[in-house]
Amino acid sequence: MAYFPEVEKVVFEGRKSTNPLAFKYYNPSEVVLGKTMEEHLRFAVSYWHTFTLPGTDPFGNATMIRPWDGYTGMDLAKKRVEAAFEFMEKIGVQYFCFHDRDIAPEGTTLRETNRNLDVIVSMIEAHMKTSGKKLLWNTQNMFSHPRFVHGAASSPNADVFAYAAAQVKKGLEVALRLGAENYVFWGGREGYETLLNTDLKLELDNLARLFHMACDYADEIGFKGQFLLEPKPKEPTKHQYDFDAANTIAFLKTYGLDDRFKLNIEANHATLAGHTFQHELAVSRIHGMLGSVDANQGDPLLGWDTDEFPTDLYATTLAMIEILKNGGLHSGGLNFDAKVRRASMTPLDLFYGHIVGMDSFARGLKVAAKLIEDKVLDDWIAARYRSYREGIGKDIVDGKATLATLEAYILDKDVRVTTSGRQEYLLAVLNQYLLEVE
Amino acid sequence: MAYFPEVEKVVFEGRKSTNPLAFKYYNPSEVVLGKTMEEHLRFAVSYWHTFTLPGTDPFGNATMIRPWDGYTGMDLAKKRVEAAFEFMEKIGVQYFCFHDRDIAPEGTTLRETNRNLDVIVSMIEAHMKTSGKKLLWNTQNMFSHPRFVHGAASSPNADVFAYAAAQVKKGLEVALRLGAENYVFWGGREGYETLLNTDLKLELDNLARLFHMACDYADEIGFKGQFLLEPKPKEPTKHQYDFDAANTIAFLKTYGLDDRFKLNIEANHATLAGHTFQHELAVSRIHGMLGSVDANQGDPLLGWDTDEFPTDLYATTLAMIEILKNGGLHSGGLNFDAKVRRASMTPLDLFYGHIVGMDSFARGLKVAAKLIEDKVLDDWIAARYRSYREGIGKDIVDGKATLATLEAYILDKDVRVTTSGRQEYLLAVLNQYLLEVE
Amino acid sequence: MAYFPEVEKVVFEGRKSTNPLAFKYYNPSEVVLGKTMEEHLRFAVSYWHTFTLPGTDPFGNATMIRPWDGYTGMDLAKKRVEAAFEFMEKIGVQYFCFHDRDIAPEGTTLRETNRNLDVIVSMIEAHMKTSGKKLLWNTQNMFSHPRFVHGAASSPNADVFAYAAAQVKKGLEVALRLGAENYVFWGGREGYETLLNTDLKLELDNLARLFHMACDYADEIGFKGQFLLEPKPKEPTKHQYDFDAANTIAFLKTYGLDDRFKLNIEANHATLAGHTFQHELAVSRIHGMLGSVDANQGDPLLGWDTDEFPTDLYATTLAMIEILKNGGLHSGGLNFDAKVRRASMTPLDLFYGHIVGMDSFARGLKVAAKLIEDKVLDDWIAARYRSYREGIGKDIVDGKATLATLEAYILDKDVRVTTSGRQEYLLAVLNQYLLEVE
Amino acid sequence: MAYFPEVEKVVFEGRKSTNPLAFKYYNPSEVVLGKTMEEHLRFAVSYWHTFTLPGTDPFGNATMIRPWDGYTGMDLAKKRVEAAFEFMEKIGVQYFCFHDRDIAPEGTTLRETNRNLDVIVSMIEAHMKTSGKKLLWNTQNMFSHPRFVHGAASSPNADVFAYAAAQVKKGLEVALRLGAENYVFWGGREGYETLLNTDLKLELDNLARLFHMACDYADEIGFKGQFLLEPKPKEPTKHQYDFDAANTIAFLKTYGLDDRFKLNIEANHATLAGHTFQHELAVSRIHGMLGSVDANQGDPLLGWDTDEFPTDLYATTLAMIEILKNGGLHSGGLNFDAKVRRASMTPLDLFYGHIVGMDSFARGLKVAAKLIEDKVLDDWIAARYRSYREGIGKDIVDGKATLATLEAYILDKDVRVTTSGRQEYLLAVLNQYLLEVE
Repeated sequence: MAYFPEVEKVVFEGRKSTNPLAFKYYNPSEVVLGKTMEEHLRFAVSYWHTFTLPGTDPFGNATMIRPWDGYTGMDLAKKRVEAAFEFMEKIGVQYFCFHDRDIAPEGTTLRETNRNLDVIVSMIEAHMKTSGKKLLWNTQNMFSHPRFVHGAASSPNADVFAYAAAQVKKGLEVALRLGAENYVFWGGREGYETLLNTDLKLELDNLARLFHMACDYADEIGFKGQFLLEPKPKEPTKHQYDFDAANTIAFLKTYGLDDRFKLNIEANHATLAGHTFQHELAVSRIHGMLGSVDANQGDPLLGWDTDEFPTDLYATTLAMIEILKNGGLHSGGLNFDAKVRRASMTPLDLFYGHIVGMDSFARGLKVAAKLIEDKVLDDWIAARYRSYREGIGKDIVDGKATLATLEAYILDKDVRVTTSGRQEYLLAVLNQYLLEVE
Repeated sequence: MAYFPEVEKVVFEGRKSTNPLAFKYYNPSEVVLGKTMEEHLRFAVSYWHTFTLPGTDPFGNATMIRPWDGYTGMDLAKKRVEAAFEFMEKIGVQYFCFHDRDIAPEGTTLRETNRNLDVIVSMIEAHMKTSGKKLLWNTQNMFSHPRFVHGAASSPNADVFAYAAAQVKKGLEVALRLGAENYVFWGGREGYETLLNTDLKLELDNLARLFHMACDYADEIGFKGQFLLEPKPKEPTKHQYDFDAANTIAFLKTYGLDDRFKLNIEANHATLAGHTFQHELAVSRIHGMLGSVDANQGDPLLGWDTDEFPTDLYATTLAMIEILKNGGLHSGGLNFDAKVRRASMTPLDLFYGHIVGMDSFARGLKVAAKLIEDKVLDDWIAARYRSYREGIGKDIVDGKATLATLEAYILDKDVRVTTSGRQEYLLAVLNQYLLEVE
Repeated sequence: MAYFPEVEKVVFEGRKSTNPLAFKYYNPSEVVLGKTMEEHLRFAVSYWHTFTLPGTDPFGNATMIRPWDGYTGMDLAKKRVEAAFEFMEKIGVQYFCFHDRDIAPEGTTLRETNRNLDVIVSMIEAHMKTSGKKLLWNTQNMFSHPRFVHGAASSPNADVFAYAAAQVKKGLEVALRLGAENYVFWGGREGYETLLNTDLKLELDNLARLFHMACDYADEIGFKGQFLLEPKPKEPTKHQYDFDAANTIAFLKTYGLDDRFKLNIEANHATLAGHTFQHELAVSRIHGMLGSVDANQGDPLLGWDTDEFPTDLYATTLAMIEILKNGGLHSGGLNFDAKVRRASMTPLDLFYGHIVGMDSFARGLKVAAKLIEDKVLDDWIAARYRSYREGIGKDIVDGKATLATLEAYILDKDVRVTTSGRQEYLLAVLNQYLLEVE
Repeated sequence: MAYFPEVEKVVFEGRKSTNPLAFKYYNPSEVVLGKTMEEHLRFAVSYWHTFTLPGTDPFGNATMIRPWDGYTGMDLAKKRVEAAFEFMEKIGVQYFCFHDRDIAPEGTTLRETNRNLDVIVSMIEAHMKTSGKKLLWNTQNMFSHPRFVHGAASSPNADVFAYAAAQVKKGLEVALRLGAENYVFWGGREGYETLLNTDLKLELDNLARLFHMACDYADEIGFKGQFLLEPKPKEPTKHQYDFDAANTIAFLKTYGLDDRFKLNIEANHATLAGHTFQHELAVSRIHGMLGSVDANQGDPLLGWDTDEFPTDLYATTLAMIEILKNGGLHSGGLNFDAKVRRASMTPLDLFYGHIVGMDSFARGLKVAAKLIEDKVLDDWIAARYRSYREGIGKDIVDGKATLATLEAYILDKDVRVTTSGRQEYLLAVLNQYLLEVE
């Protein structure tokens, strides 16, 4: 192992450690609410951000300095696989995720491209066997190549739809071969730039057609992984079809896909849509659709997807509350769809990024678990809504009340509300737990 | 008629008129695509903005100078009814909309409040008979009174739910009596301030329970008007449950309410949710759920509901395209949920506000109709998606394609996309139509 | 003392205390970097949010339940004074701030209004003497009354300017009498709704004229307090003239007022302007203009001034770094321009709000002080910019370099940048300090 | 001329023309308020958007199909020059603008890069002579190369500052040689990613140092063009130092640069900063600092710089009002810092983009000129502020009033404001002018 010679295995050293290359909060084997941290958190490395993308932005060229610099084509692809497994081993993450084009270069035709893919998939398969690392999910890149300029399944060009469909077919075969626990669709360019030239209904219908075909093919080949759709409101298109969790649920229900898909919730996509991360997790959860998480964070003052490593302990704590209430993420995990800043261009920064992300979620898990264990919020909420567990409230919940019975009940009653929501107090409690949980 | 003595009936004088109190574009009897402008546009006056609200804002007291200043209680309510019908007559609008509390003051109990309401409803009924004015929709105010501080149907207090239910019952009875063509639910405070103290699922369940009760009661009393839900993303609560059209569709489908409800789309609520007005109309339309419109506009640089009179001709044109493609608004209409600015405090400004709003939609109608008549966009879109009407594209649409057949078709094909979306050209055409349509 | 019978004096009980009415982090007498916490933080209660405002919002009526409910006019004003001093005593805050109209009601003329004011000011003066409480700053409300609908000093109506000027005169006299340490101008309605009807230059000139008159009058009467201007970008007007710190500095420099004014930075106003709180503090600090702070927080997903009590420990820590680097706030302080949520309507919530705000800044102070003491960021920054302390960099800083000498130096040099900004690592350090500082 | 064989010279054909490659509103020789349209509008083509950038975005590869595809290095640079002058000739634009790196590729050292630049500059000079086209401004690209990852003049690395300075030196020499009428600085990466690692004061000081050196060198070589600074609030950095017009003015005044610099206002940068385009123009104008304009538009619902061709007639009309009130742009012009959408990938779209931009500003000019000629807004504003031209108002403006004289004047007066701002009426007038001006 020679790609990251400056780093030994990153291990837990405890809260007071001053070693920048150690975990202070993430202790994989520590048991919290009956499971180890590692079992709870199911972290995954994003192949694209960590091994493929070079640090370009709309105003600047590549900045990243990587051990595989200098290689090209299939050689580059192979070096990256070796580096990836070394990185995962050293950082102590058990899962990874990729788009098809992250791992292998395109050829002239899809046939040739698939051949490239097969070579690298074989190599990855071998590394997985040796290392025990697992594929959380794979997906397909149907947005970078210029053929997808007008969308993939929502392209006005049927050949592009066909191309995308063929990519999905191959993606599912790869998923089956590598034992992917989920299969993800992120909107890419499934959206519109202007309604002036867009057949909105046909585009949505076609999108649903692709998903149905994918379900059929998964059944055909016996792929049992969970399908996931990932909401995002905008960027690259002006309006992405999977705007937020509820929009995506509306789409899935409209097209009869809600029993086959769950959601992959990304923190930064939530904030771009005007929601908190917790909101999107909660909405998914109560609809039985919380599947997996893209663990990153955005900048609330910036209007694009900054995909920062998660560091905000409020966000990780509130996210872990939802995840724990969901009974965990099941086949899903916490995928770091996060990139080091363009100015963090050294290989060491890849470690720093993952360390702060893992530590932040580990701390969030501990705080959330204690809040749940102590029933801090649950008791509060139970008391707040107690009027629905008796009398007229129970009638309402039990479906026994009508407008007429409720009118009769209330017509002469003086209804005053003097019970505070206690938001300030609850925020103080949250701060105290954040700081004080051992 | 003496409330607005400075204004005679506002009439159409044509594009070059310099009379500030005349219509330049709204000619009610002019026929466009086979219907009169008046039939197309179905304008409604909002009782609250025009006759009730005093011009307060979070930093300031009432500014509005109104002919009914000096009256209070039921006397004030009665003066407003007289003024309202005089205003509608003079401005030439055939419809109006109200919340229960806009038209009559609350009493000590709901029984007393309903008694007040009955008096005013009788008076309105008489005025409607005389004047021929019609009720586009009514709704209930379940957000201003402090009892609704934590929500109405989503309140943690069952008595508040009961109170709200009784208000809805009375509202439906009023709707039946006055022949309302629709009945609207706007979220009010149905939303949350913080998830720390909120039972999200129970609140949504209860919201749905109220809507089911309302449907049942409407059936019971024979009210045939269309039920409408009005999306809004935020304000007054941090997160309103009916965030946008798609969120609302997800809710309606989840609770089996999608065959009873359509949407009332408000322009300003669309932009607060991060969408264009046209987007929300289009999403509603393709789901068969475009019911009615709250015709106003927001300020894209401000983060609250400014409820300005609609003046942007791009917005009105693009809105009218969607409405015409919907076959019109059917039982719905264009309700001016718009208020004159706080600094436009004279009665005359009420006329100026409605005039610019009506003229703007009239111009939008003309431009949209011509764009549709000339098939400017439709032909463009038909050509853009033509690949789905033959060959592999037709197979996709007809459900004959699978991932495997599409792969076989595309595997060795060189797929390039060289057809421009022509956005710049289409925007130039839009501008030319805006300026040149007779 | 009988207004808040349910609360004894709130005292420090330490981090593990489970008493909701105790401080966990704010220990007034604890010494940090050579001063007590109380000396560092100089907390002030905002009279308006805590004693005057009733909990209305744009969609709802008053909700607050207060011990002075039932009183009106001057009686109400007097009860509030008594309650205010009891509250300050119990919560342990040494300073307060008010607008003229917070403390006493308007009369028919300004003369009468001033008479009301004098009565209450006398009462406050007496309470101050007894209690030792101090006036951090006062200001004037030139935005609530309808006469200010078009602005105060920027009103198109000269009588309104005169009225505002007279209010400022009285305000300065009150400041002198009560020993105010500062005098604040917040924009109120100094801004515009639309440029279509606005003489931008005249309005800004007039604004400056009022400030010059205020300086002259302060000199005349011997008021030595610091003048402060408070930036805010929008709300209530579409565009407030004091948009942000830099805009305000541009204004002060343009009109020769920069030696008389400093800035009063509000957290929520910063975020509404698209800046972080820390940014606005830093910009003010490096211009020598950081005067005082309105300590609150906004919701990054909401577009209006939510004025929440500060609870975000990241924000308080980063703010305290800037304040400590400023050598403290000098005559300024941390004024809680914050209101309990509309749904936190009980008197107890006033205590919870202040407790979480004070504890959050106390914790921020401790963490910031330790970061500074350990030179965590300072050493980092010093190393990062070390190239400006020698060689060509020193020449640049010393003003010895020209474009020509720099070209000669660099023309054949290969300039590569391989030093990371280490943002991810620094954020990890910040988290560790936040959690681990004793 | 063979690069754009599908297009003849684009000429004015009038409002009813159906030729997509003709102007409908831009008639260069038409006289408006005493000058030709061409003299008023001084359009410039942006070399980068039209001849250099390939259509990449953060999620996608190059899409643009260009006549110079297939060439590389200096050959490519030369083909672009030829194509550029053919394009300018055919579209009928007299000015162009470029960054140094748009026109010629970098070499290994700056010396070599400058040699490349010289070759192309000579070629451009020759084409300018032949064609009569002029250079509105040039600037330097100090943001794309990875050496600028931490900024240029604000880089923590002094060698990078030196490199940037040398680029500016060369840029000024090119400006002198080609007779540039202005010289622009756009912030590029002059800003910060996080304050945790930033010496804010040193960075701003250094920025000012570079500008002073540039002024000195311009004086030395006799370059008389106007220096321009271009505000932008964010992107690529989290916080760009030249946030908006007022921020930039504060900076220029702080560092004594306000007599040497004017502002280059970009529409899309205005909206990203939370301002209207008109606002930024007006602020610049009243400070005597409106120098030039980057004529584009953003999408108010998107948070990044979309740089769309200007099509919104409201924005162009209101902009032209400010420009006309400024006595024109003097040495400045309207530079189309605008790119065709990524999906508008054919060469024809370059023409459509410029046509809609030029027509939109031509229409804006006509409408603005007529509004000014008819004194529609000026008379309104004069009347609105008339109280400052007599009596107490005149005393205020003349500096004769004090707080004391104003108090004496107002103390017993009943001040009511009953004059409406008439915003709704003025917006109706604006619409009518937009549609009806011949």
